[in-house]
Amino acid sequence: MSLEELKGRRRSDYAFHQEYRTRWSDNDMYDHMNNSVYSFLFDSIINAYLIEHCDLRPPASPQIGLVVNSHCDYFGSVGFPMVVELGLRVNKLGKSSVAYEVGVFEKGKDDVRAVGGYTHVFVERERNRPAPNGMSEDIRRGLKKLLENGTPKL
Amino acid sequence: MSLEELKGRRRSDYAFHQEYRTRWSDNDMYDHMNNSVYSFLFDSIINAYLIEHCDLRPPASPQIGLVVNSHCDYFGSVGFPMVVELGLRVNKLGKSSVAYEVGVFEKGKDDVRAVGGYTHVFVERERNRPAPNGMSEDIRRGLKKLLENGTPKL
Amino acid sequence: MSLEELKGRRRSDYAFHQEYRTRWSDNDMYDHMNNSVYSFLFDSIINAYLIEHCDLRPPASPQIGLVVNSHCDYFGSVGFPMVVELGLRVNKLGKSSVAYEVGVFEKGKDDVRAVGGYTHVFVERERNRPAPNGMSEDIRRGLKKLLENGTPKL
Amino acid sequence: MSLEELKGRRRSDYAFHQEYRTRWSDNDMYDHMNNSVYSFLFDSIINAYLIEHCDLRPPASPQIGLVVNSHCDYFGSVGFPMVVELGLRVNKLGKSSVAYEVGVFEKGKDDVRAVGGYTHVFVERERNRPAPNGMSEDIRRGLKKLLENGTPKL
Repeated sequence: MSLEELKGRRRSDYAFHQEYRTRWSDNDMYDHMNNSVYSFLFDSIINAYLIEHCDLRPPASPQIGLVVNSHCDYFGSVGFPMVVELGLRVNKLGKSSVAYEVGVFEKGKDDVRAVGGYTHVFVERERNRPAPNGMSEDIRRGLKKLLENGTPKL
Repeated sequence: MSLEELKGRRRSDYAFHQEYRTRWSDNDMYDHMNNSVYSFLFDSIINAYLIEHCDLRPPASPQIGLVVNSHCDYFGSVGFPMVVELGLRVNKLGKSSVAYEVGVFEKGKDDVRAVGGYTHVFVERERNRPAPNGMSEDIRRGLKKLLENGTPKL
Repeated sequence: MSLEELKGRRRSDYAFHQEYRTRWSDNDMYDHMNNSVYSFLFDSIINAYLIEHCDLRPPASPQIGLVVNSHCDYFGSVGFPMVVELGLRVNKLGKSSVAYEVGVFEKGKDDVRAVGGYTHVFVERERNRPAPNGMSEDIRRGLKKLLENGTPKL
Repeated sequence: MSLEELKGRRRSDYAFHQEYRTRWSDNDMYDHMNNSVYSFLFDSIINAYLIEHCDLRPPASPQIGLVVNSHCDYFGSVGFPMVVELGLRVNKLGKSSVAYEVGVFEKGKDDVRAVGGYTHVFVERERNRPAPNGMSEDIRRGLKKLLENGTPKL
């Protein structure tokens, strides 16, 4: 994806949506949301989806997702006390890994403020290694929906 | 207030309400929201109220609130990916200072999980000292509503 | 303890000490460390002590500490990129519970900037209830040192 | 840089170094430092350098740095109560922008755990636009040292 294409992301490019109220501590000295806070929001929508739709139970699931790389492009700012809307899609689904993309919107505004995401590798909790047969069927089935549902393949 | 009385707090004891979605990073190793995160939520609902109802503009207002003490009692846990509901009331309104109380509820449940708050002293931004005439009229007028509106005096 | 006494705390009133470098995100819009961040620092020195001196292993220990109340008095500000020095003492050691006190100092300065702390109740991890015989011997032995070692009883 | 080259980073590849003590809240449910916390550490060493060596004064400087993109590759985990060592270098210095790279090490261990960074565009504080003549001389002079001092150009 070129930077121009990312900048053109709209809510309809994403299949799963959640609203998050910003917090006072999200803003830094420049009175906008600290760029690092975006990662917390990505983590939140991704894990909320895994829990709700892929049967992830963080304290006990036999497989857990490890983040191997992350990235974000920032096009505009958001800040407390704004409500932000996040959209989630899957850009690539491999045997053990998945590349998520998250778009960050201000409630009530069309243009995307930031587009980022990360890659999860699902590993066996005990050994910290990818399972021989890749991610579990529950996880794969759930993630597949984000690939097909309104999210054109790249 | 005795601990038993605090434990009996209900949503109707509070005059201003907001919902906050919890975040993945709010949970600690014990899979519930870290007790320190409650302070971030208190800060958020209090400053949201000051901005919306007391004309506070954090980057520019001539008076700002300094926290001089804070406290919290925890009665039960909340945790990601839950949505929490906060209620805000004012327990004491002085010349320059105000004592806020915040109740933390799980969405859809009656019993309060934590009750805490802090005391703000409003100071002149430049000098970092209380203004000779106390908090501004905008702030006082806004805070007074939290004292009267459905929140019985202690 | 009266507020005046707390304000008079010095490093020598505490038995265990750690330095923490502040982080960019600790500062809020007013360019000093957000009052909520103090709780994160209290959590850090207390759990570091429990791990190093009381054999706590957070992912596996049969007993864990639940925070039942917390408090802090703020006397002055600190802020990024300052290094802060924390001191830890135990003010009260019960059968299952312990009341910690933490003092926050700026590196190289004598006067205490904030004094706060919290009460831990040690519970059985599985049942989430205090153990019939109270906290484990490892924990009690470690915490006792903070009560005796240079920290006069209140 | 290929992933293999990044994985081969050593402390000597970086010109500026700082230690950060991890915090209890840095760890997530899997008992290692949440991947989002790395961004907070990058922000911290970068802004500490700008304040100490480039005369940045966050509440008042006429130019401030806006983050336009960020990225990180994770090779191993760190976690509380560990002390982490960060190294900072500049990979590219443009007229108004700079690309930083940060390496994250566990104290006392050689292998790098994560390599990431971000790009700052320096803008005029009031207009939020790059200055016609690019970043100020103070900033350029300070950042240049990170480009030359022990950090081979890419």
